[in-house]
Amino acid sequence: MTLPARINALILKNDGFAATRTGAGIDSLDPYLSFSTLPLPQPHAGQVLVKLRMASVNPSDLYFIKGEYGQARVKGAAAGFEGVGDVIDGKGLHARYLKGKRVAFVGGVSGSGAWAEYIVVPAATCVVVKPAMRDEDAAGHVVNPVTAWTMFDIVKKSGSKSFVFTAAFSQLGKLMAGLARDNGYAMIAVIRKDSQAAHLKALGAKHVLIQSDPDFAAKLAALMASEKPRILLDAVANQLAADIFTAMPARARWVIYGKLDTETPVISEPGQFIFMDKKIEGYWLSKWFRNASWLEKIKALRAVQNRFISGAWKTEVVATVKLSDAMQDLPDALKLGDGKVMIVP
Amino acid sequence: MTLPARINALILKNDGFAATRTGAGIDSLDPYLSFSTLPLPQPHAGQVLVKLRMASVNPSDLYFIKGEYGQARVKGAAAGFEGVGDVIDGKGLHARYLKGKRVAFVGGVSGSGAWAEYIVVPAATCVVVKPAMRDEDAAGHVVNPVTAWTMFDIVKKSGSKSFVFTAAFSQLGKLMAGLARDNGYAMIAVIRKDSQAAHLKALGAKHVLIQSDPDFAAKLAALMASEKPRILLDAVANQLAADIFTAMPARARWVIYGKLDTETPVISEPGQFIFMDKKIEGYWLSKWFRNASWLEKIKALRAVQNRFISGAWKTEVVATVKLSDAMQDLPDALKLGDGKVMIVP
Repeated sequence: MTLPARINALILKNDGFAATRTGAGIDSLDPYLSFSTLPLPQPHAGQVLVKLRMASVNPSDLYFIKGEYGQARVKGAAAGFEGVGDVIDGKGLHARYLKGKRVAFVGGVSGSGAWAEYIVVPAATCVVVKPAMRDEDAAGHVVNPVTAWTMFDIVKKSGSKSFVFTAAFSQLGKLMAGLARDNGYAMIAVIRKDSQAAHLKALGAKHVLIQSDPDFAAKLAALMASEKPRILLDAVANQLAADIFTAMPARARWVIYGKLDTETPVISEPGQFIFMDKKIEGYWLSKWFRNASWLEKIKALRAVQNRFISGAWKTEVVATVKLSDAMQDLPDALKLGDGKVMIVP
Repeated sequence: MTLPARINALILKNDGFAATRTGAGIDSLDPYLSFSTLPLPQPHAGQVLVKLRMASVNPSDLYFIKGEYGQARVKGAAAGFEGVGDVIDGKGLHARYLKGKRVAFVGGVSGSGAWAEYIVVPAATCVVVKPAMRDEDAAGHVVNPVTAWTMFDIVKKSGSKSFVFTAAFSQLGKLMAGLARDNGYAMIAVIRKDSQAAHLKALGAKHVLIQSDPDFAAKLAALMASEKPRILLDAVANQLAADIFTAMPARARWVIYGKLDTETPVISEPGQFIFMDKKIEGYWLSKWFRNASWLEKIKALRAVQNRFISGAWKTEVVATVKLSDAMQDLPDALKLGDGKVMIVP
């Protein structure tokens, strides 16, 4: 196989972090990315060169290119965290074992990204994909599904048989709905649009609350009394989330894993930390990967792949955009909103 | 010994909780208490009758009588949580063992309180006071000193060699200063008045920051960089505390144990929960007593008594008010502010 000297990629225009925060919304990629070419990245010891099949577009990607993610940008590097592709080459024992295999990955080595024809990633972070798994499921099966799997573990370990989930019409919310139903847990899903409720219930959410419902507070209070959820899994970290947390029963934990809203929340009842033993904490998949044992990781990834292969989970793809069309088409595709957007070479 | 049929007491005028919160400040006791008589409380099985020597006045007492504490008031009952006295009578094996002994206590049985000539308390919650300990030290040696001792344990277990302490000129802050110095920890004390700094440093605080200092933020940032404190022990839960928490390094924990300020804090950087693994939690002595083993409690109380007997800790009493004068004199005594106020029969 002849490898090209240069590859097409979506390349970061900026360094470091943005001074202001505007959230995950994007009207144009022009301020952040350019479609151009980079030299073919070269694997060093312990690394593999992967030819991209499909990259997924996650909210973390959008925050990152805008400079609003907890990780500094490097100008001139390819963007994109997650995808699936074929291992073409590599250095070291593990790399040679992976050669020819289809792998999923999250995060390339410095300067290399998933929104490109080729990416170099550490061999140790590659996940071999079972043949029965579709590219559409494999391309995004690490960030969101492993997040769902490990966050559901937080609920299970808490002893609470129910949990609240904000921004629940996200891919993550849909994955959680199935996990909750299949394991006998009551998911209280908080969403923006009434039109999304039926779909989310079909996927497994026991209760759905619409943010704009004039009776939201009363319905929430009734569910707090009947289901007694002690975990709030939250991607918005705004006043709505803070108010839900305040309404929750004793020993409630507000687990923040995203900051979709730029509004900063007010803690209206700090006494609840003392007298009701409430807590606020964060969840970050990177930290889970850093702290989990090799066996825990293998078990989680195997379980995730099996759920996709069995059809218990299915990635809802709303648009597939070519790398060369992304500058123009990606912002519109992201506005479709009811499923994942994929990038293909 | 002849026991009176009726006893003098400061009696709660209100039931339940207040609708509004105004904090620990009190200009007059009239809306909350009356000085009057109650029938002598009778000990049931497992309870002892204690003749009061001295009761301490804690912030929790003031919040409680105002209906702003996490515990409902009972109209017609005596106020007052903590004190020291002599066991006069009692029912049961443990009660008979305690008869004639000087004991410290926190919280009487329903209807009975420490701001009275006699109180009935469960025998199991009585702490026998070593003879060498002064009444002034014994009267308040459970709530604040055990809180200091167990909160210092949070710092030790965190692995951080320093901590931030707000409202640090409180009795608790003074106790913590000594514990910190004697164990080689750097206490970063945040106080309101420059005039309190020297005293607090003499007691053991390594650093003192004055809230009104125009360079407060810069000095705080410098200490965060040099001392890297990961625990914030906080009794105010206001914006200042939230801003200190935001300025703290990764893995910082904001431990809220009081709500002295009525201002509600805004969480300006929720992303820190995710990417910096920060946490907010509460501390409540009652919960510690509920969860600690018998041995842990004995060890903590013995250590606390020994620190007072050795002189490492000393209760600074700023005023001693007679029960019959309290309605008039207590509010002014509380405004003296630089030490504890005690009530005697």
